[in-house]
Amino acid sequence: MFRSHTCGQLRIEQVGSQVTLAGWVQRTRKLGGMTFVDLRDRYGLTQLAFDEAVNKELSDKAQKLGREYVVQVIGTVAERSSKNAKMPTGDIEIIVSELIILNVSETPPFTIEDETDGGDELRMKYRYLDLRRNAVRKNLELRNRLCFETRNYLIQKDFIETETPVLIKSTPEGARDFVVPSRMNQGEFYALPQSPQVFKQLLMVAGFDRYFQIVKCFRDEDLRADRQPEFTQIDCEMAFIEQEDILNTFEGLVKAIFKNVKGIEFSADFPRMSYADAMEFYGSDKPDIRFDMRFVDLSAIAKNRDFGVFNDAEYIGAICAENCATYTRKELDGLTEFVKRPQIGAKGLVYVRYEADGILKSSVDKFYNQDDLKVWAEKLGAKPGDLILVLSGEKDKTLKHLGELRLEMGSRMGLRNKDVFKPLWVIDFPLLEWDEDHQRFSAMHHPFTAPKPEDIGLLETNPAAVRANAYDLVINGVELGGGSIRIYDKDLQALMFKTLGFTKEKAEYQFGFLMNAFKFGAPPHGGIAFGLDRFVSLLAGLDSIRDCIAFPKNNSGRDVMIDAPSLIDDEQLKELNLIVNLPK
Amino acid sequence: MFRSHTCGQLRIEQVGSQVTLAGWVQRTRKLGGMTFVDLRDRYGLTQLAFDEAVNKELSDKAQKLGREYVVQVIGTVAERSSKNAKMPTGDIEIIVSELIILNVSETPPFTIEDETDGGDELRMKYRYLDLRRNAVRKNLELRNRLCFETRNYLIQKDFIETETPVLIKSTPEGARDFVVPSRMNQGEFYALPQSPQVFKQLLMVAGFDRYFQIVKCFRDEDLRADRQPEFTQIDCEMAFIEQEDILNTFEGLVKAIFKNVKGIEFSADFPRMSYADAMEFYGSDKPDIRFDMRFVDLSAIAKNRDFGVFNDAEYIGAICAENCATYTRKELDGLTEFVKRPQIGAKGLVYVRYEADGILKSSVDKFYNQDDLKVWAEKLGAKPGDLILVLSGEKDKTLKHLGELRLEMGSRMGLRNKDVFKPLWVIDFPLLEWDEDHQRFSAMHHPFTAPKPEDIGLLETNPAAVRANAYDLVINGVELGGGSIRIYDKDLQALMFKTLGFTKEKAEYQFGFLMNAFKFGAPPHGGIAFGLDRFVSLLAGLDSIRDCIAFPKNNSGRDVMIDAPSLIDDEQLKELNLIVNLPK
Repeated sequence: MFRSHTCGQLRIEQVGSQVTLAGWVQRTRKLGGMTFVDLRDRYGLTQLAFDEAVNKELSDKAQKLGREYVVQVIGTVAERSSKNAKMPTGDIEIIVSELIILNVSETPPFTIEDETDGGDELRMKYRYLDLRRNAVRKNLELRNRLCFETRNYLIQKDFIETETPVLIKSTPEGARDFVVPSRMNQGEFYALPQSPQVFKQLLMVAGFDRYFQIVKCFRDEDLRADRQPEFTQIDCEMAFIEQEDILNTFEGLVKAIFKNVKGIEFSADFPRMSYADAMEFYGSDKPDIRFDMRFVDLSAIAKNRDFGVFNDAEYIGAICAENCATYTRKELDGLTEFVKRPQIGAKGLVYVRYEADGILKSSVDKFYNQDDLKVWAEKLGAKPGDLILVLSGEKDKTLKHLGELRLEMGSRMGLRNKDVFKPLWVIDFPLLEWDEDHQRFSAMHHPFTAPKPEDIGLLETNPAAVRANAYDLVINGVELGGGSIRIYDKDLQALMFKTLGFTKEKAEYQFGFLMNAFKFGAPPHGGIAFGLDRFVSLLAGLDSIRDCIAFPKNNSGRDVMIDAPSLIDDEQLKELNLIVNLPK
Repeated sequence: MFRSHTCGQLRIEQVGSQVTLAGWVQRTRKLGGMTFVDLRDRYGLTQLAFDEAVNKELSDKAQKLGREYVVQVIGTVAERSSKNAKMPTGDIEIIVSELIILNVSETPPFTIEDETDGGDELRMKYRYLDLRRNAVRKNLELRNRLCFETRNYLIQKDFIETETPVLIKSTPEGARDFVVPSRMNQGEFYALPQSPQVFKQLLMVAGFDRYFQIVKCFRDEDLRADRQPEFTQIDCEMAFIEQEDILNTFEGLVKAIFKNVKGIEFSADFPRMSYADAMEFYGSDKPDIRFDMRFVDLSAIAKNRDFGVFNDAEYIGAICAENCATYTRKELDGLTEFVKRPQIGAKGLVYVRYEADGILKSSVDKFYNQDDLKVWAEKLGAKPGDLILVLSGEKDKTLKHLGELRLEMGSRMGLRNKDVFKPLWVIDFPLLEWDEDHQRFSAMHHPFTAPKPEDIGLLETNPAAVRANAYDLVINGVELGGGSIRIYDKDLQALMFKTLGFTKEKAEYQFGFLMNAFKFGAPPHGGIAFGLDRFVSLLAGLDSIRDCIAFPKNNSGRDVMIDAPSLIDDEQLKELNLIVNLPK
């Protein structure tokens, strides 16, 4: 060992002990004849002291240490004359008797501080330096802790962590697979799994009964801000259970994680909301319920005057922003611009200010008198001082627009505190959704999701109305996990594939092994998967999942540190029987 | 829940309780008016009883249950009249009042028993049925347990489990990489990691200090019996340590695993042996030390007669097989054939039987008299009743041949008990080995392994003599893990790349990011990686790693269950700008 203690360990009790420390030079400063060096490691900072009067040579050597030099020191723990209450080691310093430079360092391209001067690109290129920052390392420690607690909880409940293969078969449904050319099986390819879905179902057929795995998954998608080509799931499956058992078991897991990782206890059951209500009242299948501001449908009461926009609308919906009647014209114009942004796409915004004196002032005063507006206000439960915001148009779209506006108001009003966590189960998802591009239904979750038994009859008559035994766990508007009860009957599975437009041959080619497995006694089963990266970034209060991943990729799927992907040798291509044929 | 208890849970104490069980029908048998069904799940077997006299219809239904049907039963726990002491639930049975068939099953292609009638190929194709067998499931439970204990031990010691990327950069050294074409970065490829080696070193540069990860790795090699294209490592790295610290830390891990998983305690320190001694005395860098039978060098004493084979040999080595003087001529011929097999390649075998009456009878009686042979016997410590086996030839080859012969004799003599575990550290590996194909040195472990400081001077003068701070953990002749202290000085790393024949440009292109990282204060560090699949199969006493992997691939790298790899759509190839060009 190059050290007897870490840089976060020594306290006043150790005064007088001889110790050896090793770490990185955080900073060096000279105060009269004294030189002080802050030595840093993963565990903390310790102040090293060098007295010119005692040992001029050693003191000179210390003064010359550059930032991020790696040093080992031997010395004696002493009580500081001016203590630093902000540092756990702030009561002591090390009177150094020996200083060994283990490695030098060039000046790093950005400062190794909680608030660094490095931009995103630079931090990613020198990720190994970025990871030296407390702020980043703590996220990865949190990730490690979350995984540890997850395993503890699940293994205590008889779950078996089982690895499923990474080199599997391509199934060109849904998102794009990454593929891996096989050298030994010429012309053929493996695919990297988008999830271990079929394998965990096979494990249920195998009688494993309670499976989980913390596992890398892969999607070759065009990356949005918060997506990575490789991401990690907490993947779980249980047999001989019903939906209620899954919700209870994994609500328990989430509670245990919050308690043991964040010290937050949820005593009550997580609330539940149907998908239909989530869409109707929050315009989203992942409502942020840290604040209320539910939608109120004004369609029935606001079509009573000459305002064509409303009269032509399929739906008129409103939210009430408490105490926002003081919003200026400029602020209201800002909100109008917000909803009209192409990413949202509303046509316009109607507001009603319920002034403190009881007068209602709206952007549609031409059409609606005080009595009309009072009816709206009453329906919304608005009080003097509140602001009513109204959107209208095609129902589905308007609900989504209103959902965005609600979140924006929540943010502006400070109702989305990162330290407050509000979990919610969204249940009763539709089984299918209409795919405009392909003019057919596609599975909302995946083709193995079971319809609600009472809705099976609708599969052939009114597929859009079939609800699934599917559920999402949403916290603060973030979808942390989702799952479903699965089909375990081979005939129902065949009907499902047919509904999704699979030919018999295609279903057989892609999922024959699963259909085959269902012939040999498949038990009732279901499961859930949590997005680990999102879970960690939610707990850490991060804006992006990137800072809870040790070596993330950028928006082009590149690792700018190692410079991957990259060209490969012609020899490698030849062995794989591949020719790269770039478009001219 | 479809059950109130598992099939392994009920005992005499529960007699009289109403219970609900669910599981698979193991077998059905009729005894007079009684029908008995053994119901199986992961936790055990429970006997269900149906009395024709009480409920004929129910009894008839039970009789018709096929093997592997999935059923749910409600009934009352009763004491059995004829108890079965071999089953944990053997004191009770369930008097069934309700029987629900949850799913039917075709007759499985092999029996779901500990000893099955399914061959390897069939078992792999129907792996989900094979996994229902206790024998296979127990291996996976053991694997889960081993991982859990590993994490417990390492996290208690402040190791942080950190995920490293799976989509990395190809480095065409050593074994072949699997590559992954990138769609977003046209013409470029990711590679799948053969190990997270450089990333764990970067984490040390990042100050993470104690890292581990249980992680999938990939090698596109021609598969031998006990290799898989994807395999799992327990990958570890520490900073501010010396070799001794690594050996102690991970000896502790291995002891904890044996204690908590197998109930085996190692009180003494694991013995250590230099690579040089391992080769000299066991002809292998992974000696099986469950038995002794060390090589004795007869070169100096056996060249004193007219036997040309010995006189021309660089090396003459012998082992003494205790109490084997009774070996028949046929058995000795068998041993000669064994060493002459092409996989071994020795030219012949000399034996000396030290008969019980003190007479020495050898296959070289023509050349050596009793006194000569007595000298050999003394040197070997042989006693009357023992058998001496001698091989000769070029030294390196003969040591290997003798090593194979020693293992064969160990097996024949019953000295390789699978329930006895003998760990051994092999240390002081050579840094480099001569690569005949490329006429240059290559790294014995990898190019980041540190030479012993006292040997650095030899790097430019006598590279073959340089020893490394590298070590393997060997148990029962199986290399379970290996690692090294790493280079952390950029100039030494550059010299190492040069010694390995890298041009500056090539080193920069492939490992520039690591060399760059070493400019910013790399700490002294080192690590180790254990092969998880081998570790589990050693603990489980398996002959192959396949049965401790849930969904393994066969010798052609195929998953015969899902039929992967497979052809992919032209559309997929086009998006990746690839043309498959198979040899005619």
